[in-house]
Amino acid sequence: MKRRSLVTLAAVTGLALAWNAHAADPLPSWNDGTAKQAILRFVEKTTREGSPDFVPVAERIAVFDNDGTLWAEQPMYFQALFALDRVKALAPQHPEWRTEEPFASLIKGDVKAVLAGGERAAGQLTMAAHAGNTTEEFAKTVSDWIATAKHPKTGRLLTEMVYRPMLELLAYLRTNSFKTFLVSGGGVEFMRPWSERVYGIPPEQVIGSSIKTKFELRDGTPVLVRLPEIEFVDDGPGKPVGIQTHIGRRPLAAFGNSDGDLQMLQWTSAGSGRRFGLIVHHTDSEREWAYDRTSPIGKLDKALDEAQVKGWTIVDMKRDWKTIYPEARTTTAKAVLTRGPL
Amino acid sequence: MKRRSLVTLAAVTGLALAWNAHAADPLPSWNDGTAKQAILRFVEKTTREGSPDFVPVAERIAVFDNDGTLWAEQPMYFQALFALDRVKALAPQHPEWRTEEPFASLIKGDVKAVLAGGERAAGQLTMAAHAGNTTEEFAKTVSDWIATAKHPKTGRLLTEMVYRPMLELLAYLRTNSFKTFLVSGGGVEFMRPWSERVYGIPPEQVIGSSIKTKFELRDGTPVLVRLPEIEFVDDGPGKPVGIQTHIGRRPLAAFGNSDGDLQMLQWTSAGSGRRFGLIVHHTDSEREWAYDRTSPIGKLDKALDEAQVKGWTIVDMKRDWKTIYPEARTTTAKAVLTRGPL
Repeated sequence: MKRRSLVTLAAVTGLALAWNAHAADPLPSWNDGTAKQAILRFVEKTTREGSPDFVPVAERIAVFDNDGTLWAEQPMYFQALFALDRVKALAPQHPEWRTEEPFASLIKGDVKAVLAGGERAAGQLTMAAHAGNTTEEFAKTVSDWIATAKHPKTGRLLTEMVYRPMLELLAYLRTNSFKTFLVSGGGVEFMRPWSERVYGIPPEQVIGSSIKTKFELRDGTPVLVRLPEIEFVDDGPGKPVGIQTHIGRRPLAAFGNSDGDLQMLQWTSAGSGRRFGLIVHHTDSEREWAYDRTSPIGKLDKALDEAQVKGWTIVDMKRDWKTIYPEARTTTAKAVLTRGPL
Repeated sequence: MKRRSLVTLAAVTGLALAWNAHAADPLPSWNDGTAKQAILRFVEKTTREGSPDFVPVAERIAVFDNDGTLWAEQPMYFQALFALDRVKALAPQHPEWRTEEPFASLIKGDVKAVLAGGERAAGQLTMAAHAGNTTEEFAKTVSDWIATAKHPKTGRLLTEMVYRPMLELLAYLRTNSFKTFLVSGGGVEFMRPWSERVYGIPPEQVIGSSIKTKFELRDGTPVLVRLPEIEFVDDGPGKPVGIQTHIGRRPLAAFGNSDGDLQMLQWTSAGSGRRFGLIVHHTDSEREWAYDRTSPIGKLDKALDEAQVKGWTIVDMKRDWKTIYPEARTTTAKAVLTRGPL
């Protein structure tokens, strides 16, 4: 009885899998072109048993940049919107900010004066917005904020400024037993409260920049306090370092959109066997934004040249993507993610 | 047809699962006692649908210390054995070590003089053994070494100095959809090359101490170079910090054996809902070693007191474990891990 049940189980499972494989286009928001074909070919070659490029499940690691790769990053990184909102919300508790720069200008709404403060001002605002609380308090602050935060231009929720074709790609890779990781210059604790809901990526698969934290007992209760000191910058050459620190094996596939992703793509594609590198090129000034070599945000210059040399796939957003965002409010990102081929 | 197949699939799967649940003792190397019962009760209460303590699969995180919790740590941490062997192996390339301490004493075999050098000497040996190579070179060095490294007292392979009851516990938790992590004061890159084979824990679920690494292009080939500088010490209050940095959610269960695990146990057990803390108490001077409050290695003092207060489970190795190690050479650790209840 036992053996027979198992045989039945295997047979039925095999049927279901075979049915799935041919059931539906896994990337319906992608136009049929070289980018889509390259993705399908890579997954087929690395996951089909008997393929010379076959990779065991344990080694199927895919890493994704966030800003400009999975969600939009114009007119400024969304985490900067958070920092500005946060400083304004904290202002009543900081009367000294009324005369201290860059806070005074920000509170007056003089963004130009804030920007004139350069990196130093940006650092002060970042620390004021991110440090001085516990990890649990900060997670709640982010969750509350992102639940209603809207994009200044489109009026969409920021979590609806994610790219539908990339959500399909994440789901497609996971269906093929890839473990998907975020590897972002953004703050790791800024992404974790919503990455699972929005991208299907759990907190333990989120790698990002961080500030130092300190363990403390407060009246016997352990807390992790966030300190105003940079711990790690997960950008540029920091990305392969972050990948090694957190994952400890070289990814099979890397997805980015800017020069900040160059070293991650180099590190990934230099591994042995078949690897995959992809760059999202922002070419759609009507449905999204068009920018590359000279953009102050998401600058794509060196990586665009190297993509040609190394044979990385370049996505032309305008040409390759049928739609950019999930349908707002009605079809949520989550609905796209969980809608499997069955 | 499709719907019917799925119903059949579900029915057969359900049968198989029900059969599994009652098929065998998942912890055969554990004597029936309070420790074993506490483990079984915790898993049952957090994983049974409808239980008031039910925890969704995504949140089932279990963290394990390594030295003294999953494998032995006497007469010295096994990574120290590696460091000593490594420095000896590197000595021919470093003629200056013949006159430089602590290297000169080590090469002469004068361990007492090495130990007299204290922390500074230990730091110098550690860096000499661990830094100055690339991540890939270091991983190969560790893999080669651990393939043959034997324990000075038992003569067993070090990878056979793991605790069979703990291997069963790891497998049991994973069968119940827990994600198991190593959280060790040991070097993260020292554990990763063998943690998957020996414990079934993949590199991305290994958290440990680390030295700094730097991304470099060498003749166009990207490498990560290991620098002689401490990056993170994953011990004591560092453990909750490491857990937050890598996992980003509070564990449901924590397993340790020394005061170095105290803050990890505090952090874990202070979470909401049912949590589980366990301490392996080394009480078996015949089959293993007996040590606790005054041991220079694996000192268990404060955590032993706090375990009583907090209701953490204390494993009495002598009384609670039927066997300590897997059968050497014939039954490998891997065989125990992969031998499921079917």
